[in-house]
Amino acid sequence: MINEIGRQARAAGRGLARLTGETKRDLLLAMADQVQQSVSTILSANSNDMAQARSEGVSAALQDRLLLNEGRVDAMAAGLRSVANLPDPVGMITAGWTLANGIRLQRVRVPLGVVAVIYEARPNVTADAAGLCVKSGNAALLRGSSYALRSNTAIGEALQAALVSRGLPAEAVQIIEDTSREGARELMQAKEWVDLLVPRGGPGLIAAIEAEATVPFVIDGAGNCHVYVDAGADLNMAGPIVFNSKVQRPGVCNAAESLVIHEAVAEQFLPGMARQLIDAGVELRGDERARSLAAELLPATNDDWGTEYHDMIMSVRIVPDLDAAIGHILRYGTGHTEAIVTEDISAATRFTQEIDAAAVIVNASTRFTDGEQFGFGAEIGISTQKLHVRGPMGLEALTSERYILFGDGQVRA
Amino acid sequence: MINEIGRQARAAGRGLARLTGETKRDLLLAMADQVQQSVSTILSANSNDMAQARSEGVSAALQDRLLLNEGRVDAMAAGLRSVANLPDPVGMITAGWTLANGIRLQRVRVPLGVVAVIYEARPNVTADAAGLCVKSGNAALLRGSSYALRSNTAIGEALQAALVSRGLPAEAVQIIEDTSREGARELMQAKEWVDLLVPRGGPGLIAAIEAEATVPFVIDGAGNCHVYVDAGADLNMAGPIVFNSKVQRPGVCNAAESLVIHEAVAEQFLPGMARQLIDAGVELRGDERARSLAAELLPATNDDWGTEYHDMIMSVRIVPDLDAAIGHILRYGTGHTEAIVTEDISAATRFTQEIDAAAVIVNASTRFTDGEQFGFGAEIGISTQKLHVRGPMGLEALTSERYILFGDGQVRA
Repeated sequence: MINEIGRQARAAGRGLARLTGETKRDLLLAMADQVQQSVSTILSANSNDMAQARSEGVSAALQDRLLLNEGRVDAMAAGLRSVANLPDPVGMITAGWTLANGIRLQRVRVPLGVVAVIYEARPNVTADAAGLCVKSGNAALLRGSSYALRSNTAIGEALQAALVSRGLPAEAVQIIEDTSREGARELMQAKEWVDLLVPRGGPGLIAAIEAEATVPFVIDGAGNCHVYVDAGADLNMAGPIVFNSKVQRPGVCNAAESLVIHEAVAEQFLPGMARQLIDAGVELRGDERARSLAAELLPATNDDWGTEYHDMIMSVRIVPDLDAAIGHILRYGTGHTEAIVTEDISAATRFTQEIDAAAVIVNASTRFTDGEQFGFGAEIGISTQKLHVRGPMGLEALTSERYILFGDGQVRA
Repeated sequence: MINEIGRQARAAGRGLARLTGETKRDLLLAMADQVQQSVSTILSANSNDMAQARSEGVSAALQDRLLLNEGRVDAMAAGLRSVANLPDPVGMITAGWTLANGIRLQRVRVPLGVVAVIYEARPNVTADAAGLCVKSGNAALLRGSSYALRSNTAIGEALQAALVSRGLPAEAVQIIEDTSREGARELMQAKEWVDLLVPRGGPGLIAAIEAEATVPFVIDGAGNCHVYVDAGADLNMAGPIVFNSKVQRPGVCNAAESLVIHEAVAEQFLPGMARQLIDAGVELRGDERARSLAAELLPATNDDWGTEYHDMIMSVRIVPDLDAAIGHILRYGTGHTEAIVTEDISAATRFTQEIDAAAVIVNASTRFTDGEQFGFGAEIGISTQKLHVRGPMGLEALTSERYILFGDGQVRA
């Protein structure tokens, strides 16, 4: 089964790779139009998915992610139009030079070929991921949750109608109907057909991919992000940065989970900061020294330092110096986003050089590690791995590069 | 065992990451000096390795790879000095811009951390790989062949003496003494400690890594490279390009294995070309049409089209048009290097756009896909994968990137 799907995707991808930017823009706009024209079919399929989800008693949170309505369908179309209008990453010459023997060399950005996405019960990801794949010249294999299969199929049919209306094979965007675990494993191991697998889901999905995938993948991993308030911090700046990093959207990966404070400013900074966070509904869990400065803190256990709460909870640690702060973050961080608040240029320099994370931030909220904030226009995830792409992933993350050499008869001596 | 080795490598790598380019240059020059000063120890260890290899009756080719002498030790030192003088890849700002809210963003090249290399019985790789890893700010875990263990250990001790002489931990370069298969598997699965695994070996090693590795790796895979002589070829140019691609060094991955000829020029081109190749000792294996034009050709079987001979053998296929040439290469090529000879700009453009390979070459020998030829100064291999790095891998392939953001109190609305 996966071989037939993969073979069709590979052939369709070769066609997509040859399209001009203008053609792809037009295609994505047609995909947006088709999604909106298919709104009644999509909502009808979704209401069947919703009925089944309710009858199986799935959580309210999952039901909310699964639910579509006219506004959400419009938002999918708007997302496709936004990606349609991004610059085409394909064909960009990222480097070029002439060898001593006269061969002219270019390094050119090219599509990967076939991109697979495994995702949870969010039907909007079907349109988002298809748009990003097609815009970057790749065929898409989309494997969503069984809860969303009817919705995903309806959205997929709309996207395929747009492909066919432009003379392209429908198989450029395929919804994988086998949503079993066995089906997921087949996709994760389809080395002949899948050039990149992007997981969009929680720790369970990531663990399954790390254990079973043999195709190349990019991990959008955990964000146990810290804000370190240095001895040299402007405390009037530190307060809003800590508050925003924790409270503005606590359920996402670039939210801060842990506050690390230099002992020289802890007595002055922590009591007021703690009050402000607790008033906003944050549960604070501190080490002994932190609790001696702010009695409202609950005691932290060793497990707290390594936990990504995704919730209104924050751990608090007092450190004797910058070395201890860096050591703590290197030990417990997940390499996502780490922030320092300081006016001390030496401390900022050491922090940015020694903290090994996708994003290291001086004097701003951790919440800025985001494709849209970075100006990428769209984001397929945030890579916490070091190879291929690190940090927010835009269209370029879905491309590879190729060397093209132009000679006039050169041979090696 | 691997945990202790890995922990020490991780710590040592953090120290290397902070070194300036000047310090690393001095360090590599010291490594070169120490290797030369240790020549008698190294040659004595190597003669024990050689004695054992001979007693076990290993092949003459393996013995030649294993053998060291003064000249080869000098060449190792020269290699280290050459890498010492390359530009430092670490700290390079590869992109940078200012967000609308005033945050200044930089994307900076940083070391990966710990790089592991698994290689065959070539002791010179010990010095080469250590030099590339240290120059790019990474700790090195070097796992060579059991045949070369004494030689590798002696070279490793010289390199460690240089590290210690500069106040750095010896564990920045470690020779893995456990050369068992189980030991290799442990290294391939040491996810906590290994940021990149580079295999330098044959298909057996690559297959083992693809099957068993859970650490990130870059594959230096097979090169079933083609030269396509188009209808629009300058046949006076095509002859030397085909000859050089096949004959100049047939045992390497960028040598051509297959000659594809457009039928419009086959009758004029093939007989003379075949004679020249056969006179040079090449065995030619052709399809039926090729054999009808040049009777000296042996018959090719279907297996020939997918075979990387690494030898003085070449398959020959006649195709009716450019589409058939591209189709044949896409089907049987390994994505390494593919060349076209043509004066026809449309054919050259289609070939470079549609052939999906690390290097696509117009009117030059396939033998140019090489780090030194590209001007990278040193090469740790040639990547045939699409993620992270593709084609010849220089020092930059041993780095990652990190976003560094400088704000003055920005928070997200």
